[in-house]
Amino acid sequence: MSNVSVPFMFVNPKSYLWGKESLALALACDEICARTGVMIFFTCTYADIRLIAENTKHVVVTAQNMDSLNPGRGMGAVLPESLLDAGAKAVVLNHAENQKTLAELYACIQRARELGLITIVCADSTIESKAVAELGADVILAEPTELIGTGIPAEASYTVDCVREIKSVDPDVKVMIASGITTGEDCYRVVLNGADGSGSTSGIVNAPSRSGRVEEMVQAVLRAMEGRPR
Amino acid sequence: MSNVSVPFMFVNPKSYLWGKESLALALACDEICARTGVMIFFTCTYADIRLIAENTKHVVVTAQNMDSLNPGRGMGAVLPESLLDAGAKAVVLNHAENQKTLAELYACIQRARELGLITIVCADSTIESKAVAELGADVILAEPTELIGTGIPAEASYTVDCVREIKSVDPDVKVMIASGITTGEDCYRVVLNGADGSGSTSGIVNAPSRSGRVEEMVQAVLRAMEGRPR
Amino acid sequence: MSNVSVPFMFVNPKSYLWGKESLALALACDEICARTGVMIFFTCTYADIRLIAENTKHVVVTAQNMDSLNPGRGMGAVLPESLLDAGAKAVVLNHAENQKTLAELYACIQRARELGLITIVCADSTIESKAVAELGADVILAEPTELIGTGIPAEASYTVDCVREIKSVDPDVKVMIASGITTGEDCYRVVLNGADGSGSTSGIVNAPSRSGRVEEMVQAVLRAMEGRPR
Amino acid sequence: MSNVSVPFMFVNPKSYLWGKESLALALACDEICARTGVMIFFTCTYADIRLIAENTKHVVVTAQNMDSLNPGRGMGAVLPESLLDAGAKAVVLNHAENQKTLAELYACIQRARELGLITIVCADSTIESKAVAELGADVILAEPTELIGTGIPAEASYTVDCVREIKSVDPDVKVMIASGITTGEDCYRVVLNGADGSGSTSGIVNAPSRSGRVEEMVQAVLRAMEGRPR
Repeated sequence: MSNVSVPFMFVNPKSYLWGKESLALALACDEICARTGVMIFFTCTYADIRLIAENTKHVVVTAQNMDSLNPGRGMGAVLPESLLDAGAKAVVLNHAENQKTLAELYACIQRARELGLITIVCADSTIESKAVAELGADVILAEPTELIGTGIPAEASYTVDCVREIKSVDPDVKVMIASGITTGEDCYRVVLNGADGSGSTSGIVNAPSRSGRVEEMVQAVLRAMEGRPR
Repeated sequence: MSNVSVPFMFVNPKSYLWGKESLALALACDEICARTGVMIFFTCTYADIRLIAENTKHVVVTAQNMDSLNPGRGMGAVLPESLLDAGAKAVVLNHAENQKTLAELYACIQRARELGLITIVCADSTIESKAVAELGADVILAEPTELIGTGIPAEASYTVDCVREIKSVDPDVKVMIASGITTGEDCYRVVLNGADGSGSTSGIVNAPSRSGRVEEMVQAVLRAMEGRPR
Repeated sequence: MSNVSVPFMFVNPKSYLWGKESLALALACDEICARTGVMIFFTCTYADIRLIAENTKHVVVTAQNMDSLNPGRGMGAVLPESLLDAGAKAVVLNHAENQKTLAELYACIQRARELGLITIVCADSTIESKAVAELGADVILAEPTELIGTGIPAEASYTVDCVREIKSVDPDVKVMIASGITTGEDCYRVVLNGADGSGSTSGIVNAPSRSGRVEEMVQAVLRAMEGRPR
Repeated sequence: MSNVSVPFMFVNPKSYLWGKESLALALACDEICARTGVMIFFTCTYADIRLIAENTKHVVVTAQNMDSLNPGRGMGAVLPESLLDAGAKAVVLNHAENQKTLAELYACIQRARELGLITIVCADSTIESKAVAELGADVILAEPTELIGTGIPAEASYTVDCVREIKSVDPDVKVMIASGITTGEDCYRVVLNGADGSGSTSGIVNAPSRSGRVEEMVQAVLRAMEGRPR
């Protein structure tokens, strides 16, 4: 079983932020993390992993992708060992903007486990999420691709069904719903409906205050957990 | 015209080295660079760019690849701005182990120029090298793919013809021959035959002394330049 | 539930045969099919589908791949409707030599179902096969990639475990074991151990008599079915 | 030098048409071809090549893509020999919707030449077109990707410059301008401005009469040739 605590938050600036701007948001998240105890996965560019890892203590520094190769040849590939060495603790795999073949995805999950990296694996639909659950992902980011970046969250029934279906394959896997999430209120709803975590890209990057938005989201998922039936 | 001085050396540990081992070799190269004045392109994993750049002054820190995307979406892509911000000054494109479509290759060359990154573009054959020269590469790494990693260098006539043909398209582009290069002697020969630079992966990574091998190669290309007809 | 009868045979000449040679083997298979009642999936190049379909009555003409696109743009893609129109009744997806992303694989399975094409989906390992079973494949071709083309069949325990594990996800899916299969005896063993079908590429293409080899394999799987515990 | 006569027309229904609808348009083109003497490249799905080739005499049956592989393994790849055997005489390579790496593109051009298939190679910009000219294409389809499917033709100066620049690399290569071409008038203009041929997808597929539109385009390019300065 993975060391993912619930609820968690996924702060995913993709290629919107790098260098100083990325570090600034990471530092704010680190403080929120320390204060609230909510686990925050913070993604950054490969080149920023060391910078973020050296300057934070609480966020889970998360690579946006990796390849399954072992040390050796593989010019320009994303070597898992290089991410770990730089301070990454988790990795996103199979994002809709960076898809993997089934074989490469499974190989990456195995390599990540070998190195102790938490895997956050993306899937487009409930059916694909169940397939990913078979492969042994730690966290499944289940998001209908057509909602990514739209600001339209999935419906409650999607969340409820999706979580139930995925956990029927692997009760230990964590389920994140993050597509179309813009506000704390959006996060509240998906976590109330059973998701283990939520997160956002544009909802955070384009917010009037990025750290304020993360704070709002973290408070929302904490509230949602309290509101959930025991 | 690019700022590539001749002769230059290409130290390319691919995914063989990362973290401390990569830094150790970079520091040795930095000293050789400072002492001899020979330009050394030193490639490293994305996650090590900042580490190497912060600890060296003379080597040209070189990314092993990048994507053409602009800041924004593009999960897991290699954002050019993130490489530059971390300290990269050059980038390898279209390596045989990481090939690009023609359109993406041209887009990357344009993005690199926009940011001031030197482009080292790989091509398999003389004909493909001429195509790459049309695209405006700064350095062309012309290597028959079938020789990569074999320890068998290309024949003298290949080097002579290749350099002449490529420069007929663009007299300013620099030509590197590096496939099958293991020793200083191999580097000597290709530079004597007209290449502007040479380099190696396995010849350096597997050498009894990696820095000793780089030193040997740098001295060889300096000697070769003196031996060339003026 | 699909219309796949058990045991079945998979005759897969890949890109070894085309035109007349492909047709000759298809005609022989068609006769074997008619005489024995064993279902034979016969794969051919896209350009030969119509030729084979127009000249046979019993083999299941099978495309070696397809794309999920709908009619419209998509230059050079393999349009599902064009395969169906030419006479294909089945399609192989996700072969190790032609891998798909998880999302594209699921989209192809849905498109195939929509058109009534039987899907034969390849997977490298038992775990990946279970993931594919979640996606709704009709037949899973479970083969350890490292055995393809080696002439070394998987061990009995692999077959037994693999079949049991896959059917625990979807009892209706058919399981084919075909990697490293060269002779009728090889087919006999995998079907005796629980596989619903078997097949080969090099075992048939390189046989002294291709049709003789198919005949031998078909007789072997029939015998194996009789030997299986009821 | 290739056997491409000037002016020529490129009728490219992509994945919009297949089977009977594709054949109907091919038959109409065949008659136009026979009557006017204008060379027409007619593209179709792989599965329709034999159908079209067996029922026409004058159009150049053209595959929408191929792979560089040789007969053997290569499941689902588009084997050049299979296209030739089915009756294809030409092949489109590197379309914006089906891009190739530089190395694969060059390998395909070599394979096509070996088999006597005419190559029509797509490129996005004048610079990329020059790179493609270095590779030895027979026809270059130079089209700014952003215009494909828009119905907005390239400007006159684009055509003039593009043709001149490409022919400075290889005077024998034929240049086609086809992006944003909807009507005969559009074809007239690009051929008047120096293009050797033109063609369309949506302009033909969505025309009130497809064959009427091809007729209109063919008459336009003939008129344009007469209007060109000798």
